Amino acid sequence: MNEQYTIGLDYGTNSVRTLIVNTANGREVGTAVWHYEHGDAGVILARDPNLARQHPADYLKGAEITIKKALADAKKNARRFKPEQVIGIGVDTTGSTPLPVDAAGQPLAFNRKFAKNPAAMAWLWKDHMGVAEAAEITELAKKIRPQFLAKCGGTYSSEWFFSKILHCLRTAPEVFASAHSWVELADYIPAMLTGTEAPDKFTAGVCAAGHKAMWNAGWNGYPDAEFLSQLDPKLGLLRSRLPGRVHPIDRAVGGLTEGWAKKTGLRTGIPVAVGAFDAHLGAVGSGIQPGILVKIIGTSTCDIAVSPNKERLADVPGLCGIVDGSVLPGYFGLEAGQSAVGDIFNWWVHYIKPHGEKLSHRNLDAEAAKLLPGESGLLALDWNNGNRTVLVDQRLTGLLVGQTLYTSPVEIYRALIEATAFGALTIINRFEEYGVKIGQVVNCGGIAEKSAITMQIYADVTGRPMKVSRSAQSCALGAAIAGAVVAGAHKDCAAAQKAMCGLKPKIFKPTTKAHETYRELYPLYRKLHDAFGTKDWHGNLFDVMKKLIEIRQRVRK
Amino acid sequence: MNEQYTIGLDYGTNSVRTLIVNTANGREVGTAVWHYEHGDAGVILARDPNLARQHPADYLKGAEITIKKALADAKKNARRFKPEQVIGIGVDTTGSTPLPVDAAGQPLAFNRKFAKNPAAMAWLWKDHMGVAEAAEITELAKKIRPQFLAKCGGTYSSEWFFSKILHCLRTAPEVFASAHSWVELADYIPAMLTGTEAPDKFTAGVCAAGHKAMWNAGWNGYPDAEFLSQLDPKLGLLRSRLPGRVHPIDRAVGGLTEGWAKKTGLRTGIPVAVGAFDAHLGAVGSGIQPGILVKIIGTSTCDIAVSPNKERLADVPGLCGIVDGSVLPGYFGLEAGQSAVGDIFNWWVHYIKPHGEKLSHRNLDAEAAKLLPGESGLLALDWNNGNRTVLVDQRLTGLLVGQTLYTSPVEIYRALIEATAFGALTIINRFEEYGVKIGQVVNCGGIAEKSAITMQIYADVTGRPMKVSRSAQSCALGAAIAGAVVAGAHKDCAAAQKAMCGLKPKIFKPTTKAHETYRELYPLYRKLHDAFGTKDWHGNLFDVMKKLIEIRQRVRK
Repeated sequence: MNEQYTIGLDYGTNSVRTLIVNTANGREVGTAVWHYEHGDAGVILARDPNLARQHPADYLKGAEITIKKALADAKKNARRFKPEQVIGIGVDTTGSTPLPVDAAGQPLAFNRKFAKNPAAMAWLWKDHMGVAEAAEITELAKKIRPQFLAKCGGTYSSEWFFSKILHCLRTAPEVFASAHSWVELADYIPAMLTGTEAPDKFTAGVCAAGHKAMWNAGWNGYPDAEFLSQLDPKLGLLRSRLPGRVHPIDRAVGGLTEGWAKKTGLRTGIPVAVGAFDAHLGAVGSGIQPGILVKIIGTSTCDIAVSPNKERLADVPGLCGIVDGSVLPGYFGLEAGQSAVGDIFNWWVHYIKPHGEKLSHRNLDAEAAKLLPGESGLLALDWNNGNRTVLVDQRLTGLLVGQTLYTSPVEIYRALIEATAFGALTIINRFEEYGVKIGQVVNCGGIAEKSAITMQIYADVTGRPMKVSRSAQSCALGAAIAGAVVAGAHKDCAAAQKAMCGLKPKIFKPTTKAHETYRELYPLYRKLHDAFGTKDWHGNLFDVMKKLIEIRQRVRK
Repeated sequence: MNEQYTIGLDYGTNSVRTLIVNTANGREVGTAVWHYEHGDAGVILARDPNLARQHPADYLKGAEITIKKALADAKKNARRFKPEQVIGIGVDTTGSTPLPVDAAGQPLAFNRKFAKNPAAMAWLWKDHMGVAEAAEITELAKKIRPQFLAKCGGTYSSEWFFSKILHCLRTAPEVFASAHSWVELADYIPAMLTGTEAPDKFTAGVCAAGHKAMWNAGWNGYPDAEFLSQLDPKLGLLRSRLPGRVHPIDRAVGGLTEGWAKKTGLRTGIPVAVGAFDAHLGAVGSGIQPGILVKIIGTSTCDIAVSPNKERLADVPGLCGIVDGSVLPGYFGLEAGQSAVGDIFNWWVHYIKPHGEKLSHRNLDAEAAKLLPGESGLLALDWNNGNRTVLVDQRLTGLLVGQTLYTSPVEIYRALIEATAFGALTIINRFEEYGVKIGQVVNCGGIAEKSAITMQIYADVTGRPMKVSRSAQSCALGAAIAGAVVAGAHKDCAAAQKAMCGLKPKIFKPTTKAHETYRELYPLYRKLHDAFGTKDWHGNLFDVMKKLIEIRQRVRK
């Protein structure tokens, strides 16, 4: 009866999940998933492929349904489990996913006037309508506030907070005018659960604000009104209505409202932690600490590291962000990533469909595992969706070299995995070049869970053991850890992680021979990377095809 | 009853064809094909994928069967046709396909002792066992006989006459020792039909000797014994036993033997023309003359042009060969080519099999035709089987750039067609840069016959109308033209071509808008071509992906 549990509430692109975790040992006793009911698998689309929105009604309904179901599931799995034993809640969401709210903090989409207006909904992380606005923001910052860009890799993205808001201002002025303010989804959910949506009560997370909205204590929070006004005077006026308080995840936003307690069966008043992005809480759930790189590998990757905020840390060029407290309180959170990983494999399997339906991911994984490094003579760049780190350039595309008349689908599949591994190594190297030592790599997410060959290739390419987080739901687990900290079950995040996180027993170790071959291939990848991806490179590529053939012939012997 | 016909006997890689043609108007009245019965579709293979041989028994049997069948076919198609109306025979074959023969001119493979020894068979054009020997020959020629290389593009190929013989000498010395001499298939067939196999009677064609065996009147025929002796003293001794007489196709080797007349039903003594390679006679059958480039497009291409031998002609770097009389008597024959064209499309359709069995060549052709130039954002190099012209480098491989997460199989298919079109344009440009003016382009071969979209893309890329030879069997027609000339039906090749060749009514004309887009894409192809294919290039490729995206976005609007 004295077991204690917390809930991790995990808002993804297509569905929401509730995970109930034992705070003493990380045991996951109950879970439930609900698929959003609006749009196409939860995403509202339009003719323009850059548009991607979500309806906030799905957020409310999803919380209610999955919490109730997960509690029921926990009752089945853990004898004597009672909902009253749940002592806290943490929240992770996609992001940057801002939504316009009225003066009471209610989403504009709930106003009948805007019920079907996509501009009044949540602007999902992958909405790219604000490409022009992003360029404008980058341009202006370069001129008058270069410090803003130094913390976010040198370029402000169309996926981020102000690009979206400025685009709304320009293209749906009636929505912008009706919005009292804009909030991130990661901040809206805790506010909703605790009844603190109203502007005067509002608390935001430093994760979303710092990584996507240029919030920094060094310049007094969000970009100054003067800067925003130069983009548009109305944006300058919005500055004073943005959240005033910004905190890391070990802080409670408030207590669960009576209404939500009634709806779900939880106790009124249990604390709800400050929200953060899925990848950042995934890193927490994978046991991140200084020296550990956590790779959250799904359709794309986030690569997260932390560094003590007592120490000086150089700005790392090409990183998506460096934000104090965005992952763990007391540490800089560093975010890097690859724009596509699983998505590239999916492209090959589902768009090109080699050999029709016969070649599933599983078949290709099994066949790819039989090939030796270098055997195919192929080399690819992992840029089918651009490059997030270290080039920070959306206007890059895929490349494959080394094809013969006998190149097989499996060989190309493996070359694509290898390309993402070379991209991963480039990120690790960039961290280390700027003094962020990577002692261990822990992976989580769908690809880490499902594709052993991908993990083995990552080990062989990087020359480092690849560990995998024990939980198959590391993001939700990270949220539950935040819930455990704000509920007082542990004195801080580190203690909670020690109790609740773990690794899978299987560790993918690099093999000497494979690593040696990849040490020959990586410079060729890097040559293509620099030749096509940077303006400074000057040289000749005559040796690339020759060396690939040389290696192929040697390996085939 | 006074109609006259000649036979074109066409020896391909997998089968032999007889075509019976009316000498007055080129009407094709009878044809028959026979598939070789030895090996795998006529090709004897081994564990080493470089080995490819043919059994000479197939050559004899194939001639007998197809001539008889074609005569029967002609009787059905042309009322009053009689075999006695056939007045001459021409022969084209693959090459370089040399075979070892004994002192009576009989293939060693007919000797029971060597019946199953692949070294004693015909060494098919695509046999690449002599890679090391080819390099050795090139090396030596560079040092002491640079003039030899100037006529064959700067590199002696592993596919050619002396590479194969030297490899036999090194690896099957008992076969080399038992061989009195070596003859090209293109020379063996006419000798066989006319009973002139014995060394003292032997006549060879200048096409095979000049393009593949470094024969040149300027240095008294084949490479001198001193040169050959430095490769191996035994090769030096072979020099005096190589064919002494070498001629173009307007010369008769002899008359059909009584034996062959009886076997086939043809008249004894009808003249058989000097043989030549399929591509060269394909050019003749497509109506080649100065100013016309003939492209024979199948699995690979041969690009053939002629230039009056009265005029001075610079050596054209990167061309496979420049040989006086190799195509038409009185003209230099110039041969260029692409190592893979249809083979690259086949690779995509049959090795990668996008969408399984659903996407045939025909479906892909139809879908590819719906795309606009530049719409896919893709760019490819046509080097899956190396580059024959202008780089003359086997150690090159394919390249594809511009892939996104939505790139479709059809888009890649079209990019591969475009790549071969860019390769074709590079060859045309090379001809013209060295003073060989190309006024018209006439295509023949399987791809020209079957793929309208390929022809249209070639027109749009080159900005030139693409014409297609009227005959679907232009190589065999060219052979029949040689037969008509030696039989006296026409006073020379030009007269015979005028009477017997023609074009299909459909001409593929370049469209202005498509050509404009390709004029933007070709410099990008050329940049990749030079960056990966030459040692001299120095530069940066940052603009390649950007420009492809720019063009894609403009075209999609």
